[in-house]
Amino acid sequence: MREPIAFEIRRRAIEAAQGRVPFDLLLRGARIADVATMEIRDADIGIVGPMIASVHAPGAFTEATEVHDLAGLIVTPGFIDAHVHVESSHMLPHRYAEVVVPQGTTTIFWDPHELANVLGLDGIRYAVEATRNLPLRFIVQASSCVPAAPGLEISGADFKADEIRTLLSWPDVAGLAEVMDMRAVLETQPRMMAILEAANASGKIIEGHARGLTGPGLQAYLAAGISADHEITSGADALEKLRAGFTVEIRGSHDYLLPDVVAAINTLPVIPTSLTVCTDDVFPDYLVEHGGINDVLRRLIRYGLDPLQAIRCATINNAIRLRRDDLGLVAAGRRADLVALSDLNEVRVEAVYTAGRHVAQGGRMIVPSLEVPPPLENTMKIGRLVADDFRIRVPGVTEGRALIQTIKGARFNSWSEIEVEVRDGFAVVPDELSVMAIVHRHGRNDPRPSLSVIEGWGRWGGAFATSYSHDSHNLILYGHDPAELALAANTVIEMRGGIVVVKDRQVVAQLAYPVAGMLSLGNPAEVAAAHARIVEAAGRICAWQPPYRTFKALSGQSLACNPGPHLTDLGLTDGTTKEIRPILIRPI
Amino acid sequence: MREPIAFEIRRRAIEAAQGRVPFDLLLRGARIADVATMEIRDADIGIVGPMIASVHAPGAFTEATEVHDLAGLIVTPGFIDAHVHVESSHMLPHRYAEVVVPQGTTTIFWDPHELANVLGLDGIRYAVEATRNLPLRFIVQASSCVPAAPGLEISGADFKADEIRTLLSWPDVAGLAEVMDMRAVLETQPRMMAILEAANASGKIIEGHARGLTGPGLQAYLAAGISADHEITSGADALEKLRAGFTVEIRGSHDYLLPDVVAAINTLPVIPTSLTVCTDDVFPDYLVEHGGINDVLRRLIRYGLDPLQAIRCATINNAIRLRRDDLGLVAAGRRADLVALSDLNEVRVEAVYTAGRHVAQGGRMIVPSLEVPPPLENTMKIGRLVADDFRIRVPGVTEGRALIQTIKGARFNSWSEIEVEVRDGFAVVPDELSVMAIVHRHGRNDPRPSLSVIEGWGRWGGAFATSYSHDSHNLILYGHDPAELALAANTVIEMRGGIVVVKDRQVVAQLAYPVAGMLSLGNPAEVAAAHARIVEAAGRICAWQPPYRTFKALSGQSLACNPGPHLTDLGLTDGTTKEIRPILIRPI
Repeated sequence: MREPIAFEIRRRAIEAAQGRVPFDLLLRGARIADVATMEIRDADIGIVGPMIASVHAPGAFTEATEVHDLAGLIVTPGFIDAHVHVESSHMLPHRYAEVVVPQGTTTIFWDPHELANVLGLDGIRYAVEATRNLPLRFIVQASSCVPAAPGLEISGADFKADEIRTLLSWPDVAGLAEVMDMRAVLETQPRMMAILEAANASGKIIEGHARGLTGPGLQAYLAAGISADHEITSGADALEKLRAGFTVEIRGSHDYLLPDVVAAINTLPVIPTSLTVCTDDVFPDYLVEHGGINDVLRRLIRYGLDPLQAIRCATINNAIRLRRDDLGLVAAGRRADLVALSDLNEVRVEAVYTAGRHVAQGGRMIVPSLEVPPPLENTMKIGRLVADDFRIRVPGVTEGRALIQTIKGARFNSWSEIEVEVRDGFAVVPDELSVMAIVHRHGRNDPRPSLSVIEGWGRWGGAFATSYSHDSHNLILYGHDPAELALAANTVIEMRGGIVVVKDRQVVAQLAYPVAGMLSLGNPAEVAAAHARIVEAAGRICAWQPPYRTFKALSGQSLACNPGPHLTDLGLTDGTTKEIRPILIRPI
Repeated sequence: MREPIAFEIRRRAIEAAQGRVPFDLLLRGARIADVATMEIRDADIGIVGPMIASVHAPGAFTEATEVHDLAGLIVTPGFIDAHVHVESSHMLPHRYAEVVVPQGTTTIFWDPHELANVLGLDGIRYAVEATRNLPLRFIVQASSCVPAAPGLEISGADFKADEIRTLLSWPDVAGLAEVMDMRAVLETQPRMMAILEAANASGKIIEGHARGLTGPGLQAYLAAGISADHEITSGADALEKLRAGFTVEIRGSHDYLLPDVVAAINTLPVIPTSLTVCTDDVFPDYLVEHGGINDVLRRLIRYGLDPLQAIRCATINNAIRLRRDDLGLVAAGRRADLVALSDLNEVRVEAVYTAGRHVAQGGRMIVPSLEVPPPLENTMKIGRLVADDFRIRVPGVTEGRALIQTIKGARFNSWSEIEVEVRDGFAVVPDELSVMAIVHRHGRNDPRPSLSVIEGWGRWGGAFATSYSHDSHNLILYGHDPAELALAANTVIEMRGGIVVVKDRQVVAQLAYPVAGMLSLGNPAEVAAAHARIVEAAGRICAWQPPYRTFKALSGQSLACNPGPHLTDLGLTDGTTKEIRPILIRPI
């Protein structure tokens, strides 16, 4: 456990609780949300240093260096996010903290999976080092899937058992992050078995990603030592996983699933202690506008979860999951991570205290953030590209027609094929379809674009490019016009990472990610506004069709660890069969 | 965490869960108690090695090396005892296991406090080493109070911060045991602060003993990092401690308290996850006849606790407290510690499995126990005593009358005084009163008896002696006739420890404790029968007046860490003021 409490402080807390010395801070007049007994009751809270020294009857003590009147508010423990990739906010860690702390989040369980896939061990080291002494507690995980689909893609690093063992030996790394390669687990593939062996031997927590797993596969996944899942797809799925013994981390990202999940959970005799909440990936504009865990809780309550139970999921239940006896409860001896709400049902956050410090008020930070210099080496190891790099070559056919392999769909992809005209050795992409490209950017493989015709996206009326693409974070592009694709690619390359929308052969929106090709140096308002402009501009060149064809799907189309076809830097891969298919099916 | 699972086994479990290889053991036809969702449902359980590989629909798999038909039974997780001193059973650890495992207990959190007070670090080392590879999981704690009342008594060892740091550095030691010296905590006494500093720095669990603590003292005790209590004295006490944030370990030993405790808990909106159960001290005859945790659960259910909630307290709630994600749930990936009940309300145990092995059936062990040779050095470092050693000297008075200090009461003692006749320098103990003696036996101090007249016990009609006396385990005696006291003392000394009843100047019952003066070498039936004879014989020479004047109170009368007066090897001590009083108040 990091952040030991100097014993002198604890000794002073013992004295203060008995009225012998003043508290550093006394919060009085509030009601507290007791997520152990599930009562809400009047109590004052005495704080010494970073810890709660006493929770006592209103007015029992008055001596304190500072007194805050919280009359009319409900004080809950600070919210804990069970599973998050900070990278999806595109903000530096201290900037991320500036956003979520005023929303009530005081602890996150961060899988720096995206940073790791670019920077390797240095990415995790940065995640640890950049987050010390921030007003948000970052508990860092060792990313288990670097790359997520070994053999199907090449990312910036390779974590095998040795790297995992190294990471888990760091005191600051609290567990193995989501084991996404479910198939490797179920098939007992050697690389994954060695990683799981190291993780089980460490005794640390092992997080899951059990998307769609059910029945024997689900049991096998648990048997591997993996014990939590955030990939809930329905109420029935949530119940099966709770009954199987998983910690279920309800994720806010798929809002349309939540009413069914809440309804299912409400059929149980109790709300299980093994039910928690997480955000996983939230884009900066959504995060700033709607929130993180506070937003998840608000919606769960709206869909019928008891408000205090929702708070419990985000606090003590997550503390139990993380084996952090010092978090999750408004109780003496625990860290003074506290949230004062003016409205429980709406999770309206007025004030936030972390480690005994009043850090946020009325939705804004009131203390400055510390910044640790981020890694700024150029991770876009790609030379300038030209339009021809984005034309699909049909091997062995110079002129004529050919049947070529395509990928159809968004998020849930399937193989498809189309007949195309071939001119000068290049496929003529039909007017109503588009092109997707992946360009290896880590300097570990050939940086010439890997290309595919994609179906189900209509025709892109411009080009889109980002260096943030799951999970290898190679440069991903969508478009139709090779010149626009080249412009988009070169713009991202020149920014040393970032995201770009091109329309009418002009850059219409861009946001630079100079840190690992995924994090901006901007402040939250800037990043959120720029990202919103990107989303808006992308919407003008692509017609979304939720729930699958969404802006978010753009960076997930290359998720080669998922079943079915995905384009990666290695070509047309299949997450089910693990094959890589040639583009040419046959000349016609 | 001890007992790592060889990864080959885990790999096989992954395979077996998917039906690719047979289970080692398949338990079928039962219903399982799901203490996560609080449902009881039909399920079969596939086991590989020591772990559960799959919990699946009845009949889904049939391939297994061995199949047990558990039709009609309810399978729960193995019971966990949150706080126990094995020493009070007077059995060697493997014998203790033979008793409690058939009762459904598969894990205990052992504070070898009594062994430590006699043998020091060697006592804890023995606790660790003698308990490996037994069918009962002993999780060992570092005893925090050796001696329990420093300055008021001398035991066989002294654990200061250095010893505690050493113990907590052992991987097999999971926490700091009950911090009994509450006053030292609340007064921030240096020795205790140094111990708590070491314990907090270790990050391991810190157990409490918050007897009677309330209000500011209770908050201060929590602030010290102590987070569990088993010394519940009423329903209101239980509620205050649950609300304060303690893990409350309901103890079975004071049955008359339990109805009130259950009624209070049932007023809460939920049964808290922080509610658990423990046995603490159970004598061998009671343990064999009535049980340990199974008996506690049975009574809690009888007093109105929901049966499945009672099971939850003894399983997942305790696993959470112990941060043992591998225990407490009938779920894949967890240890196959399982109990099959034929009657949930009566907690009637039919079969017990620990680490996947069928170890008990119908109340009896069906596998042999391993014994690690116990330490057998003589810890009764006292020469032969004579009758005059048990006469109370009144200093400075040879003949006449004197007002002398006495101790009145049982368990809750108070100071008293009586006028006595003095003959030849000795007090003449009035006919209706008795004498208590403590003889230092660890070879670290003067072994001449420390004596007091005691009020509230009537006149002992014989003598009683035991080398098992809380917490220093000096030789303790009760009686009236100095010759009988000497006979009782010498009998215990000759047995190298034990317990003796003398009546009419003859030994009428005895039981040897050659291991540290507290453990017998006998089997459970022998120890239980001999102990029952002792209790019965003691009852013939002393009239019990429950709830305080009981057989159990005999070994607790010297508990100098408790408030009020107690006789120790150092004399008439006061647990409240920490003074040691002279016996003579004044000559008359």
